[in-house]
Amino acid sequence: MTASNKPSNFSNPKYDPPDSLRSVGMTIARHIRLADAEHPFVLEYGGVLPEVEVEYEAYGELSETGDNVILICHALSGDAHVAGWYAQAAQTGRTWRLTHPGWWDACIGPGKAIDTNRFFVVCANVLGSCYGTTGPGSIDPATGKPYGLHFPMVTIGDWVNMEKALMDRLGVKRLYAIIGGSLGGQQALEWALRYPRMMGKTIIMASGPKLSAQGLGFNAVARHAIMHDNFFNGGDYYDQPKGPANGLAVARMLAHITYLSGKGMDYKFGRSRLQKGNAQTKKGFGQEFSVESYLNHQSKTFVERFDANSYLYITRAMDYYDAAQAWGGGDLVAACERLHSELMVVSFSSDWLYPPAECRDFVNAFIACRKPVTYVEIESSSGHDGFLVDAGPVGRLLRAYLLAPGVNRRFGAIM
Amino acid sequence: MTASNKPSNFSNPKYDPPDSLRSVGMTIARHIRLADAEHPFVLEYGGVLPEVEVEYEAYGELSETGDNVILICHALSGDAHVAGWYAQAAQTGRTWRLTHPGWWDACIGPGKAIDTNRFFVVCANVLGSCYGTTGPGSIDPATGKPYGLHFPMVTIGDWVNMEKALMDRLGVKRLYAIIGGSLGGQQALEWALRYPRMMGKTIIMASGPKLSAQGLGFNAVARHAIMHDNFFNGGDYYDQPKGPANGLAVARMLAHITYLSGKGMDYKFGRSRLQKGNAQTKKGFGQEFSVESYLNHQSKTFVERFDANSYLYITRAMDYYDAAQAWGGGDLVAACERLHSELMVVSFSSDWLYPPAECRDFVNAFIACRKPVTYVEIESSSGHDGFLVDAGPVGRLLRAYLLAPGVNRRFGAIM
Repeated sequence: MTASNKPSNFSNPKYDPPDSLRSVGMTIARHIRLADAEHPFVLEYGGVLPEVEVEYEAYGELSETGDNVILICHALSGDAHVAGWYAQAAQTGRTWRLTHPGWWDACIGPGKAIDTNRFFVVCANVLGSCYGTTGPGSIDPATGKPYGLHFPMVTIGDWVNMEKALMDRLGVKRLYAIIGGSLGGQQALEWALRYPRMMGKTIIMASGPKLSAQGLGFNAVARHAIMHDNFFNGGDYYDQPKGPANGLAVARMLAHITYLSGKGMDYKFGRSRLQKGNAQTKKGFGQEFSVESYLNHQSKTFVERFDANSYLYITRAMDYYDAAQAWGGGDLVAACERLHSELMVVSFSSDWLYPPAECRDFVNAFIACRKPVTYVEIESSSGHDGFLVDAGPVGRLLRAYLLAPGVNRRFGAIM
Repeated sequence: MTASNKPSNFSNPKYDPPDSLRSVGMTIARHIRLADAEHPFVLEYGGVLPEVEVEYEAYGELSETGDNVILICHALSGDAHVAGWYAQAAQTGRTWRLTHPGWWDACIGPGKAIDTNRFFVVCANVLGSCYGTTGPGSIDPATGKPYGLHFPMVTIGDWVNMEKALMDRLGVKRLYAIIGGSLGGQQALEWALRYPRMMGKTIIMASGPKLSAQGLGFNAVARHAIMHDNFFNGGDYYDQPKGPANGLAVARMLAHITYLSGKGMDYKFGRSRLQKGNAQTKKGFGQEFSVESYLNHQSKTFVERFDANSYLYITRAMDYYDAAQAWGGGDLVAACERLHSELMVVSFSSDWLYPPAECRDFVNAFIACRKPVTYVEIESSSGHDGFLVDAGPVGRLLRAYLLAPGVNRRFGAIM
């Protein structure tokens, strides 16, 4: 065994290849079933699912003592494919994965910030999604047809319950860390609140304990566009030649703007125009500015890979989430009293969906109840997308924080 | 004549009624025709209009020396009805005006900040709009049918040319002041650049010399929603039972969010819910949060009063405007060298469409070429809408600035 392929807890820059060449390699989606007709999955809003299939991925190996599990929580349009190259891209029709590695590949892999030589890294696709876990596009056993809007309302709490069941199935009793950005950050927070004694380090990025009125508003516009698309058909479009593609495109274009910062957009696109040959004039109202072309392209690729009904369910789950209301009767400090993990909150200076000022309020609630919290504001023009695209500073931060002795060491003694 | 109804140049708080009771009273829309088949109105992008009807309103009286004209420029969804109560609301079908005074009634009237006892105040509806001035909903004399997307592209420069023709017709040789917010601010700037020797004071509020990439992006999403509405029919929907109402509603909801600030929305709506009886659940995806209901209501009333094609044309005019490009080869300072008026730039601390930082850059360009500029940042949670809704501070500022001796006094000597 040579130095360069020897698994080690710490990467060695002298021998190891650069991050871009280090990969978990080819990955496959794994599946478990959590419910059956006799033991339905009960949801927080009162609905039940007679069948729940969970799609997840896992990298690295679970240690004998089970002390090395990191759970990753994906954001609104994400999935369980966090790292590496998806082996079944062609046969599952997820062809965009042929050219794109997992959405956090920059941070997860052997020797990377979330080091799969050391950690057992798991990510599950959430309930209501369209990437393998049961959602509105799944077949309702009662009718033999896709659920559509008959799918019950799901919450972030339901996602945590689902993931807890997955952890039980995998024999995981404790999480070394949980990490999530945006909606995934809310899920990480909910995990820490719901199962405080299971949690080591909770890392919440570009996120907060609730969505602002502005965020609620943007989600409302997105859903309005989808549900008023002429081809929405009350959510029952799976066997139709056309679904609410235009509504979903509008939702995605809009969301995309909120993920970027104004400065970042000025830097990236400014007011630059497409070259004449590429401009589509449509009597002056086609694509003319680079930013128009970019947003159009983003929406087109999104419409090919995402289900409009899933967009409705997942944005509604985001709307409903309110940690203070759920655990502290409206008082965030009271809610945080439950926490028993080490916390890190990361904000991005130009994020206007979860602006640093709001993240600091959030951190202050942890401080008010004397929880061990680390707060980092990353100076960046990447906006809300910072947790995905600023892989350099995010990776260095995660590496340092995950390896730093802290609550885990204390817990380690009692495990 | 008693003191309270005596016309005077200055309002007298001791005798005058409060602002809310001072009004220009009932107003009517005035019209002029600017072009005919032999003298078409030539547009900057090369199109021509064989007929141009301009709808405008005017309050106060033009002084004998013509030194008291204030031109108001309206914003995207505005119109010429700036103050008072529109006498023809019912017969013109503009029924919302039965319950709403002009959009800047708080600032314009006898004894108000823009004092109609002293000033002759004019506002014209822009080309491409749907409020009486020729636009895509007007009849194309060549076909006898509404223009739709056959309406030629219009620019802010065209609007200024149209208003200049109106001023000529009214015998106005000089503007004491021009005032505009948002898109109206860009129009005011273009006036000052195009006719520098005509301008006294130029007041630009919540605006700037060009739209940012983010602003371009939001406009692109709005137009995408309208043009992909199944009832858009290529813009040719005037004789159809249904037009692109849903697309226009999405555009308006989205725009409305950008006009408010995040903090303002949190303060106004937060995460408050509608009372159960008012909530429309639609399987969980109806109106449930107050902010959803508000945006829905705003979009409904807007769809009743605005034409989707006008929305396309006016947002495109906004996209295209670039003062630095037009007058300085891309250099804003070079462009501003042309200016010959006193300037005031007003920003609102929570405006994120034209944030104070960008307004300061704008002001710095005036300073760089030694133009007499006043800059005021109004501390406010009203966001971009500040110029409309913060009538208290805006009114005080306008009153002081309009009456302050300055360039006008100097010009006065040579007039």
